[in-house]
Amino acid sequence: MLIRTFTDQDWSQVWPIIEDVVRAQETFAYDPQMTADEAYAVWVVAPPGRTVVATDGDRVLGSAKMGPNRPGPGAHVSTASFLVAADARGRGVGTALCRDALTWARLAGYAGMQFNAVVETNRTAVELYLREGFDVVGTVPGAFRHRTLGRVGLHVMYREF
Amino acid sequence: MLIRTFTDQDWSQVWPIIEDVVRAQETFAYDPQMTADEAYAVWVVAPPGRTVVATDGDRVLGSAKMGPNRPGPGAHVSTASFLVAADARGRGVGTALCRDALTWARLAGYAGMQFNAVVETNRTAVELYLREGFDVVGTVPGAFRHRTLGRVGLHVMYREF
Repeated sequence: MLIRTFTDQDWSQVWPIIEDVVRAQETFAYDPQMTADEAYAVWVVAPPGRTVVATDGDRVLGSAKMGPNRPGPGAHVSTASFLVAADARGRGVGTALCRDALTWARLAGYAGMQFNAVVETNRTAVELYLREGFDVVGTVPGAFRHRTLGRVGLHVMYREF
Repeated sequence: MLIRTFTDQDWSQVWPIIEDVVRAQETFAYDPQMTADEAYAVWVVAPPGRTVVATDGDRVLGSAKMGPNRPGPGAHVSTASFLVAADARGRGVGTALCRDALTWARLAGYAGMQFNAVVETNRTAVELYLREGFDVVGTVPGAFRHRTLGRVGLHVMYREF
């Protein structure tokens, strides 16, 4: 598995991963009806942010985007989002993307990384982030309307570097 | 004091309030160098959101914007931001704007209201929100670089309706 900077040639493989995840309404607070153009505008970020793909040969297994969590007086804290293709899960792709983002953010001089909206029932993600040194700072009750579970909480998670 | 929907004629009075607050770097995680056009794009929101002004005769004392906090599965929770002109503080303008936003959000069918980044040293705001029924869900340590105090925490605050 290789993690490298996203290029536009990757989009034809990244968009179906995003589409699958947002339509499912189980892990991402994105508009489930979002179009490919809207997704591109959200996911492919310019410097100081960065978008990457995890690949196995020509195949894109997952993608991540990262950058400052807030402008101005909040720009010393980074954030990141991760997506893994449904049939590539359980192989450590998410962990590799998370570690890559943490390394990038540390080298870029950020003071820490914050996740703003981790769905509390997304155990794979929550456990991964806890393993990678994040704490649950707080949980906004019922802030995510899960397609099958109804209203569940959104964790704010943070790791200082 | 009257609270009413923002119109473009108000901008010449709203922009100096925003400019003053973002340049101070004490309460808002906005780019302190933001231009009037950038501020307009952030502050003046289209439906389903809403921007209002608090006025005293022809004078704008403060402004608020509100709307869904997140897209899709997060869109049942509202958010809002409030600004009060420096020389109009201590007169209840912030409280009136907050109550107006809560009333609007309840009538619009939201399930609650979330603030994502309340600077913990902004006691006026924190105490106002606590009085209006919000809880501190959690505090991201050091997430705001205050111009004079250095790194201080950002509260996530929530009120269910």
